[in-house]
Amino acid sequence: MLRSMERKAFVRWTPALPLQAAIEHTLLAATATPAMIDRLCAEARTYALFGVCVNPVHVLRAAKLLAGTEVTLVSVVGFPLGANTRAAKAFECELAVREGAHEIDMVVDLGALKAGDRYAVREDIASVVKAAGDRPVKVILETALLNEGEKRLGCAIAEQAGARFVKTSTGFASGGATVQDVALLREVVGDRMGVKASGGIRDVDFARQLLAAGADRIGTSAGALLATAAAKPAR
Amino acid sequence: MLRSMERKAFVRWTPALPLQAAIEHTLLAATATPAMIDRLCAEARTYALFGVCVNPVHVLRAAKLLAGTEVTLVSVVGFPLGANTRAAKAFECELAVREGAHEIDMVVDLGALKAGDRYAVREDIASVVKAAGDRPVKVILETALLNEGEKRLGCAIAEQAGARFVKTSTGFASGGATVQDVALLREVVGDRMGVKASGGIRDVDFARQLLAAGADRIGTSAGALLATAAAKPAR
Repeated sequence: MLRSMERKAFVRWTPALPLQAAIEHTLLAATATPAMIDRLCAEARTYALFGVCVNPVHVLRAAKLLAGTEVTLVSVVGFPLGANTRAAKAFECELAVREGAHEIDMVVDLGALKAGDRYAVREDIASVVKAAGDRPVKVILETALLNEGEKRLGCAIAEQAGARFVKTSTGFASGGATVQDVALLREVVGDRMGVKASGGIRDVDFARQLLAAGADRIGTSAGALLATAAAKPAR
Repeated sequence: MLRSMERKAFVRWTPALPLQAAIEHTLLAATATPAMIDRLCAEARTYALFGVCVNPVHVLRAAKLLAGTEVTLVSVVGFPLGANTRAAKAFECELAVREGAHEIDMVVDLGALKAGDRYAVREDIASVVKAAGDRPVKVILETALLNEGEKRLGCAIAEQAGARFVKTSTGFASGGATVQDVALLREVVGDRMGVKASGGIRDVDFARQLLAAGADRIGTSAGALLATAAAKPAR
């Protein structure tokens, strides 16, 4: 069922853009309440962040809150383990798009990737890409759990399967984004895909290092803080 | 859509039963490969464990491996965050049952529980119970993230919604099962529901303490180890 996908252009982040144009303000904690989602969305508007990233149960609410704004609504699929069936991932993606998500961050089938089952990994991603229609799909590799070969293979398969971005981390594993991993992902995907860094990004300096290493997007729960700090004149 | 559910009897664990009759041998790591699932299922047969518990992507394989045996196949829904839509949880449950799961462990909508939205919590559970048909549903409360009132409320709603068990933990939060939490859950559900303890259970003594406190099932990745240790004569 792999089809050749037309890959639309995405905006690469460049140093000419402000930091907040890269920030996906993120709240994926299991215990996030509707009131916390409201605040997340309000902050994204206030600080002109690129987007918000929320769990599927909050997409409908966030879509209403962000209607008519420039804020991109990102949701997740198969999150955070990626060990759901292909059909369930596709269903969850379809639903999120229908409820208003603009972009989908899916977790790769890590067990299949570890087992070297390229076919299973590719079909899993392709089913979500298909369900997403024209909405960009990011593939979360969970780099903290992979060796270099697995990271490279994950990137290659994500590209083959029509995903638009690779992304480092869920924020729920033992480690998050690193400068080394972002540089590696960028090296593998070249200019053909976007790279999203996420997991443990809590200050401006680290965010800037990740952007310098090749990230286009920064997923962080500290989006408001980063935007505020970035706006201060350097001393 | 709440319906009055006929609740089938389940076997309460009693000290007359061997320890392994309570053990759900569990492998829910994101990186679990098919070969690791094969070993899990083989161990469950070898040690006559009650069941295995696997992620949805592995249900079909485990069902084939366990066909014709007494081992119960448990899978998970909305795991481990519980922040999926009601429709996605129901779909995932339906699929798991169709592929051979005998029991379903679902994660409660923690955000709704935190917000005190009883209606959302109940409908979420009820939709999975309905999708499970006659297969027992356990509701994972993720006790490490709840205060006492939330734990009690979660139990009460799980019962109202037709679930057959409450369960302490996913194993992915900051803490797992405790003797105190198992005793609390047992106190709230009385003899009307089962209690499953899970998360961080790695030795026989702790497992026995949890059973003594009121657990009927022990979810552990150390099932083979526990069964071996339990079989040794006490010194």
